[in-house]
Amino acid sequence: MPDRVIEELDEAECVRLISPGGVGRIAYAGRFGLAVLPVSYKWHDGAIVFRTAEHGPLDEDLRTGIAHADYKVAFEIDDYDLADRRGWSVLIQGPAHHVSAAECTAIIEAGVEPLAPGERELFVRIVPSRITGRRIGPG
Amino acid sequence: MPDRVIEELDEAECVRLISPGGVGRIAYAGRFGLAVLPVSYKWHDGAIVFRTAEHGPLDEDLRTGIAHADYKVAFEIDDYDLADRRGWSVLIQGPAHHVSAAECTAIIEAGVEPLAPGERELFVRIVPSRITGRRIGPG
Repeated sequence: MPDRVIEELDEAECVRLISPGGVGRIAYAGRFGLAVLPVSYKWHDGAIVFRTAEHGPLDEDLRTGIAHADYKVAFEIDDYDLADRRGWSVLIQGPAHHVSAAECTAIIEAGVEPLAPGERELFVRIVPSRITGRRIGPG
Repeated sequence: MPDRVIEELDEAECVRLISPGGVGRIAYAGRFGLAVLPVSYKWHDGAIVFRTAEHGPLDEDLRTGIAHADYKVAFEIDDYDLADRRGWSVLIQGPAHHVSAAECTAIIEAGVEPLAPGERELFVRIVPSRITGRRIGPG
């Protein structure tokens, strides 16, 4: 398909694309190996923030990891139109942290809503150490 | 949101949901840590198959991994409607392999088209060792 190109996106463009929030996917080393789960995220104060259920499967995996130094996760956001064969993806790599109770109010005010039902009162933040992205589309 | 539920999906339902193919995301341990990239996949003969560029970034990462025993990746497919707050996701965990030249013909006939432009002549197969999924929607 010579009429299409891959374009590497700079960090500013990546942030512009992901800042509206939506569904992203967190990849992490879990109990059963590498795992990926979709979550509803917000871009808040230079970081990815999402909510999960305390003591739920994702929390248990992340909690074990966060307790270790150098535990890093990946977060991916994309938007593809397969029919048009065009779209973009952004990859954020960095450590995951729990958000302190003191910070939660500001995040709740930013409207970080969980994707899944039930109590989702644990806030997780991924601070980017690397932001990369690419766009595929007409040349 | 008490009107919504999470339903764990059995393997047969997961396979039914992902068998049409489309865009999925491969998560793997790469040079810069955990990474996630969207690819266009097919479900072929009980496995995920996608194409990538030989000696491209994804190939280089996977090639290094595949050379080691016990290199496992994760592959995620989802379909969410944020407005309706309903959707599903499927997670496949297992080893990644290169597909031999002898097998490529059958896979090409199955219509495994790459997402990105350019030469994508390396076929990668992920053989599931674990298939899990969940659906979120009205109770």
